[in-house]
Amino acid sequence: MSLRNVSVLYHDVFGTVVDWQSSISDACRATLRAHPCRSPLDQQQLLDDYDWDEFTRHWRRGYMVTTRQLSHTGNPHGITVDQIHLDTLDHAWDATTRQHLNQRWHTLTPWPDSVHALRRLAAHFAIGTLTNGNLALMVDMARSARLPWHFILTADTLGSFKPDDRMYTSALRLMHLDQTPQRGALVAAHLFDLEAAKRNRMTTIFVSGRPTEDSLPHDGTVPDYIDIVVRDLDELARLAQDTLAP
Amino acid sequence: MSLRNVSVLYHDVFGTVVDWQSSISDACRATLRAHPCRSPLDQQQLLDDYDWDEFTRHWRRGYMVTTRQLSHTGNPHGITVDQIHLDTLDHAWDATTRQHLNQRWHTLTPWPDSVHALRRLAAHFAIGTLTNGNLALMVDMARSARLPWHFILTADTLGSFKPDDRMYTSALRLMHLDQTPQRGALVAAHLFDLEAAKRNRMTTIFVSGRPTEDSLPHDGTVPDYIDIVVRDLDELARLAQDTLAP
Repeated sequence: MSLRNVSVLYHDVFGTVVDWQSSISDACRATLRAHPCRSPLDQQQLLDDYDWDEFTRHWRRGYMVTTRQLSHTGNPHGITVDQIHLDTLDHAWDATTRQHLNQRWHTLTPWPDSVHALRRLAAHFAIGTLTNGNLALMVDMARSARLPWHFILTADTLGSFKPDDRMYTSALRLMHLDQTPQRGALVAAHLFDLEAAKRNRMTTIFVSGRPTEDSLPHDGTVPDYIDIVVRDLDELARLAQDTLAP
Repeated sequence: MSLRNVSVLYHDVFGTVVDWQSSISDACRATLRAHPCRSPLDQQQLLDDYDWDEFTRHWRRGYMVTTRQLSHTGNPHGITVDQIHLDTLDHAWDATTRQHLNQRWHTLTPWPDSVHALRRLAAHFAIGTLTNGNLALMVDMARSARLPWHFILTADTLGSFKPDDRMYTSALRLMHLDQTPQRGALVAAHLFDLEAAKRNRMTTIFVSGRPTEDSLPHDGTVPDYIDIVVRDLDELARLAQDTLAP
């Protein structure tokens, strides 16, 4: 499968385009300084010794587990990741502080290569998101991180969560690719997402070098549902340039 | 109602942001030159004497009538404006040529003030579309006309057509404004659209100076469902600057 036949790039966002771990861990520490914790634990100890990276991973795992469960049901009650994030958040802080901290998911920092690479990709393809995030969150993130999306497709606009098939089929249909699904490529750092995209006959591009996300097996074998492997978005932009330059 | 309480601007697009009439009339003439008409009418006469502005208005009216009808039904069959445009198009040309001409709706030319004004508005508000157009069409238009949308909400993502209430309520909910609908403003050159937006408690901004769209009554009275009147998007950007500058 070659980029030559692709016209639309759909990007996973959390972990693939933005670095949730450092963004959120830093925000937790800053929040703790500004809004001391109501728990009896010693505030200083929480700042010095508490593993906020692990706390962040726990928060993120809660989101992954819940969206995966909801993806099987088609999300009939229209729950958003903003609600999941808030529900998963430990109740150590009061509601206002939790809201403030939760808002940090709206302004995650991109990986260093992301913004420049997306700008270059935007010259060759229609580029957008296919994310389990919700629209308001993605709009905030695109504005704060200057992500140059042509379109934003989200779980709350499409009515379910990845890896539910209807996320991929709706995204293809809305870009008029339902008869030519291979012209739509999913760009993601998650194997489960790419496996579902391939089940729906999309082209699949694995971003292998995101330290917080999935890696290829140690023996270097590439699962057969992956068409293209790149280390990061910069490598994808270079590949596009080499493949598609006139 | 003041811009001070608005955080999201939802824009109508056809007629409000882009000039469909001159774009399409020009495309019709160019298409006729490149793909002579199959009808027995004299080709030269069609080029010289035929009123392509009227033809374009007729094409546009077909779209207006059909979307208005479908808006009452909630568009159960998921018809897009691309399909409506094709169906409305006179069968004088073969399918390939009709497809080519229809594609011109994807690259309509903005009014002279639109792009610069939208860039300025994007500094103050989340700006996006709330249009009866479909997503693939709007993405093509945003890319060709360099419209700096933060988000694109369309009839096919929201599942109906304006002025169906669910278009406005869904747009508000997706931007987390369902509890504060007045923080969402509809910007449109069409009275029916603004009337529906006000019924859903949005702020309403009438763009009064688009020659192909609605005007205020000659006696200068402003209907009570309109909060703010501007001549064009440039005047709206100046108003935002004056109202919101620190």
